[in-house]
Amino acid sequence: MGSTARPSVTSRVLSILGAFDERNPRLTLSEIADTAGLPVSTAHRLLGELQAWDAVERDTDGRYVIGRRLWKVGTLAPVARELREASLPAMQDLYEATHENVQIAVREGTQALYVERIHGKSSVPVLSRPGVPLPMHATGVGKVLLAWAPREVVEEVVEGLRPITRYTITERGRMLRELATVRRVGYARTTEEMGYGTCSLAVPVQDAAGEVVASLALVTRTGRRDLAKFLPALRVASASITRRMGV
Amino acid sequence: MGSTARPSVTSRVLSILGAFDERNPRLTLSEIADTAGLPVSTAHRLLGELQAWDAVERDTDGRYVIGRRLWKVGTLAPVARELREASLPAMQDLYEATHENVQIAVREGTQALYVERIHGKSSVPVLSRPGVPLPMHATGVGKVLLAWAPREVVEEVVEGLRPITRYTITERGRMLRELATVRRVGYARTTEEMGYGTCSLAVPVQDAAGEVVASLALVTRTGRRDLAKFLPALRVASASITRRMGV
Repeated sequence: MGSTARPSVTSRVLSILGAFDERNPRLTLSEIADTAGLPVSTAHRLLGELQAWDAVERDTDGRYVIGRRLWKVGTLAPVARELREASLPAMQDLYEATHENVQIAVREGTQALYVERIHGKSSVPVLSRPGVPLPMHATGVGKVLLAWAPREVVEEVVEGLRPITRYTITERGRMLRELATVRRVGYARTTEEMGYGTCSLAVPVQDAAGEVVASLALVTRTGRRDLAKFLPALRVASASITRRMGV
Repeated sequence: MGSTARPSVTSRVLSILGAFDERNPRLTLSEIADTAGLPVSTAHRLLGELQAWDAVERDTDGRYVIGRRLWKVGTLAPVARELREASLPAMQDLYEATHENVQIAVREGTQALYVERIHGKSSVPVLSRPGVPLPMHATGVGKVLLAWAPREVVEEVVEGLRPITRYTITERGRMLRELATVRRVGYARTTEEMGYGTCSLAVPVQDAAGEVVASLALVTRTGRRDLAKFLPALRVASASITRRMGV
C-alpha cells in the first residue's frame, strides 16, 4: 500500500460528515467546504452524491442537514442497538419513580457520551442529549466512567480540569481522591459542578463479563430531592440493564 | 459533468454502509463485499478507512458493525434532533398514563419509519424500534401517514397489500375506504393486522405549518384496554408535540 499526499475520496466524504456537530447541525456549502478543508467545487460534488443517497438533505433555506438514511444506519451501531435497548425499560422505571432526568452514558476517549436520556415536563432542563459528549470531570456519569477508565485516560483528564461552574473540581489531587472514593462506594455525585441548579447521582453499569461499560444517572434540581435515597433504585436498574445485555 | 460507467468512490463507500440493516447489523468482510457488489480487496480498503474514522468498528468475532461516530452524526438528523426531542416529553406522559408502548413514526417512501418508542417491562413486545421501517397498511401509524400521503404513494401501497396476519387488510377498496375514514375521524386503529395479540390507536402529528409530518400511537395487547378512551390523551400529546416543534 503506497501512501499518498492527497487525502482519499473516502476521507473527504468523511470530513464532510464530520463538519456537522451539535453546535452546527445545519451548514451552508461554503461552511462545509471550509470546515472539511475542501475546495467548494469538490464539496459540492460530494454533497450531491451524499444527497442522492439521503445521507444529507437540504432544509427549506437550502442549508445541508444530516439525512434520515444516515440516522437509520447509525441506529444499527451497538451502542444504540444493544445498550440503549437493554437500558430503556429500567430507565422508564426510574423515571416513573422520580420524574427526574434519567441518563445513560458511555466513555468516548476523554469525554462522556450520552446514549439516552428520559425526561418529562417537570424534569430540570439539562445539557445532555443522545449523541452529545460532555466533560467527564464535571458530570456524575463522567466521574463513574473515569473511575473505571484506564490509567492513561485518567491522567489525560486530570491534567486539564477546566472549570465550568465555580463548584467544578479543578484540582488534580482532589479529583484523584474523588475517583478513588467513587470506586470504593460504587457511585458518584455532582453538586452544581456542570451547571448551577442541578446535581446528579450516578452508578456504573457492567456488561455480562463484569466490565464497566456505561454509567446510569439521575439528574435533578439542587435541593429538590434527597438524591441519595434513590441509590438502591439506581443499583437495581443498573443490574437489570446488565442482565438484559447478556441476552 | 461527465457520466462514468464505474461507480464513484463515494457511492462505493455508501454501498458499504447500506449493506448493514436491521436484519444484518453485523457482517463479515465477504458479506459486505457481496451485498455492496464490490471486490473483496476494494471493500477491505474502504472498510479500513471507515474504521479509522470510527464509522465502522470490529466486534469481538472480527465482524464489522456500525461505529459510534456514525451513530453520533446520525443523531444530528432533523428527524432525531427535532421531531424526537419535541416528542419525548409528551410521549412520557402518555406512557405514564398507560404503561403501554408509545410510538412515533414518519413516512419514508411507502413505509412507516419508527423514530422513537417508549415502553416498559409491562408493555406488550412489538416489532418497532427507532430506525426500523414497517409496512404502512398494517400499522396504526402507517394508516395515518398513508391517509395524508400524496396520491401516488397511496396508489403504490394499495396495489401491493401483503397479508401479515389473517386480519391484515389486503383489499384495495377496503383500504381506500379505511383511509377516507381515517382522514374524516382523525385517527386510525389496527386490530391484530400487524401481529396477533396487539392492537393500536394512532393520530396524526402536524408541524407548525399544519402539515402531517408524523404519527403518534399507542400499541397494546388485544383486549387489555379500551384503547378508544385514550384518544383525547393522544390528541393532547400530538398538539403538544406540534407546539414544541414550532420553537
